[in-house]
Amino acid sequence: MKYLFFAGSLRKGSLNRKFVQNAYDVLKADKDNECELVHLIDYLLPVYNQDIDDTEFPKAAKELAAKVKWADGIVISTPENNGSIAAVTKNTIDWLSRERAPNPWPKKNVLLLGASPGGLGAVLGLWHSKQPLEKLGCYVYPEVMGLPKAHEAFNDDGSLKDKASLERLAKLLNAFAEHVKSKS
Amino acid sequence: MKYLFFAGSLRKGSLNRKFVQNAYDVLKADKDNECELVHLIDYLLPVYNQDIDDTEFPKAAKELAAKVKWADGIVISTPENNGSIAAVTKNTIDWLSRERAPNPWPKKNVLLLGASPGGLGAVLGLWHSKQPLEKLGCYVYPEVMGLPKAHEAFNDDGSLKDKASLERLAKLLNAFAEHVKSKS
Amino acid sequence: MKYLFFAGSLRKGSLNRKFVQNAYDVLKADKDNECELVHLIDYLLPVYNQDIDDTEFPKAAKELAAKVKWADGIVISTPENNGSIAAVTKNTIDWLSRERAPNPWPKKNVLLLGASPGGLGAVLGLWHSKQPLEKLGCYVYPEVMGLPKAHEAFNDDGSLKDKASLERLAKLLNAFAEHVKSKS
Amino acid sequence: MKYLFFAGSLRKGSLNRKFVQNAYDVLKADKDNECELVHLIDYLLPVYNQDIDDTEFPKAAKELAAKVKWADGIVISTPENNGSIAAVTKNTIDWLSRERAPNPWPKKNVLLLGASPGGLGAVLGLWHSKQPLEKLGCYVYPEVMGLPKAHEAFNDDGSLKDKASLERLAKLLNAFAEHVKSKS
Repeated sequence: MKYLFFAGSLRKGSLNRKFVQNAYDVLKADKDNECELVHLIDYLLPVYNQDIDDTEFPKAAKELAAKVKWADGIVISTPENNGSIAAVTKNTIDWLSRERAPNPWPKKNVLLLGASPGGLGAVLGLWHSKQPLEKLGCYVYPEVMGLPKAHEAFNDDGSLKDKASLERLAKLLNAFAEHVKSKS
Repeated sequence: MKYLFFAGSLRKGSLNRKFVQNAYDVLKADKDNECELVHLIDYLLPVYNQDIDDTEFPKAAKELAAKVKWADGIVISTPENNGSIAAVTKNTIDWLSRERAPNPWPKKNVLLLGASPGGLGAVLGLWHSKQPLEKLGCYVYPEVMGLPKAHEAFNDDGSLKDKASLERLAKLLNAFAEHVKSKS
Repeated sequence: MKYLFFAGSLRKGSLNRKFVQNAYDVLKADKDNECELVHLIDYLLPVYNQDIDDTEFPKAAKELAAKVKWADGIVISTPENNGSIAAVTKNTIDWLSRERAPNPWPKKNVLLLGASPGGLGAVLGLWHSKQPLEKLGCYVYPEVMGLPKAHEAFNDDGSLKDKASLERLAKLLNAFAEHVKSKS
Repeated sequence: MKYLFFAGSLRKGSLNRKFVQNAYDVLKADKDNECELVHLIDYLLPVYNQDIDDTEFPKAAKELAAKVKWADGIVISTPENNGSIAAVTKNTIDWLSRERAPNPWPKKNVLLLGASPGGLGAVLGLWHSKQPLEKLGCYVYPEVMGLPKAHEAFNDDGSLKDKASLERLAKLLNAFAEHVKSKS
């Protein structure tokens, strides 16, 4: 199956970028999977403005929408900002939903992860992020995984320090992958 | 009292811009109120990126944060995009929350309005928008007002066509204003 | 496939009971489907109390849990009460989640419908009702259907008056059924 | 000021009952406050059923509604069940909202606390519980406090073991009380 991975963050040193890289490594290890990891900073979009949408749909949104269309499953690791969805995550979802050749979101399988320096592991943000994706017709995988204390969670090479966290992540990804496969 | 008004939209012809203008007109009619209406397009911000935040906090965010600090009450009319908060609304909330001299949001009274061309009047978006504001310590007024079929709701001069809608808006704004006053 | 239907209401004349009966009739028309419609008043449960749970798990919860286990898809029509999930719906979800031989909810496909006399068709209640089901691992179908002005929506025999509403309901149920089938 | 306290739990040994008792002790210590702590098991209600509502409004709901009316501030400690509002909390809110002499909820100040044995301190449940209260017009205090690992948090006499948690609770309650006072 084909999987697209990205973090809901534009920051170079983003904890969610590290977390989604770990997720990518898990599914990439299965030779049957095609995996692509992208950084939203490479698909930089203005804040959604219908006047821009009406005059010139951004090339970056078109390209990213094509990747979503290509994928069978999409893994997003998104921070919690002020107890809710990250602006860049919402902005990306919204811009891509405006691609009408066709809208890439309906019926896509999405898995939500989240990393945060706090103790609650972005949990409010994760559940808040489900609503726009489901409104667009995505099958958001019911289980999510929040990684608390994420600023202390990674080795210098970006891998997860804690074996139990990595195992939990791998188990979740494998369950998600099995679910995606079962529907294809 | 001092009131700040803005629409959660960058579009020039935005229905929410028209709706919040009607709200402004109601509270402005009371000579005791100081009212300021701003357009977010005049305070254009990039999508939140902590790398920008760390190097150069945007001037537009600083200026808008000062206006929020100034206000006793803030009236936001925000569209629903994909069943949830508009990206520009979330992006504005998040950027302003990063102003630390100090964070302007805690203890601010906020009233949420929403206009949408659909039949449900942005109701999912309005309730989704409460969470980040409350997480920041805002007193979000419990009642909200969604305006359905908003593309047919305004006269050419931008005023609300429907007398009952205008009366409902005025009643809500006056209740909000009384609430704001009672706490000062 | 096997489908279980119930309304999130105890009232005999419940609008949601009528709405879910229409849903039942649609899927029942396919000879390949086994359909069962139950009324929660026939499985009356006390408000969840762990002290009762610890001493004597209610027979009605055990029986209803068995029906959920049996079903491939579950269709719930639930009212909105005070902008959120109906108490009886939440109480039923919670009691059944305490059956541990095993918990019947994980991996169940659920479709949410809602009828309300108001103009918004229970939409806040429907989205609020997703969270506990997804937390339990249900695959809640992303699309929901709210029926506004439901007190005027039914003929004396309980069928939907409005042909467009019935077609929308049938289309949604068939899409749900196809989805359930594709995963089996 | 007058404060009403209850836990959203019917269980005798409830962690939330212990937590709300600590909250009661804090505000009770101020001689100017009148505080009343009730247990919902003493106001036992059936699951909401409009047929009961139409024939005989429960005495327990009438009595509890009177206490809500009496109070200037209401402190509820409510568990998270399946990532969302506890059934007994929702059932109590809904029944009391049906008292029409008058509905006791509008304009009431409510503070939400939550205790849970898990690591996230009922945070999803707390935020999920805001929606019905705000829909009813309550001023739900924006800050909430979740107590994680609550099964290890209390001494035999029910007091909080951890001094920092007690201080955080006291600080929150005093801020809430000051807020309630400022509006009276």
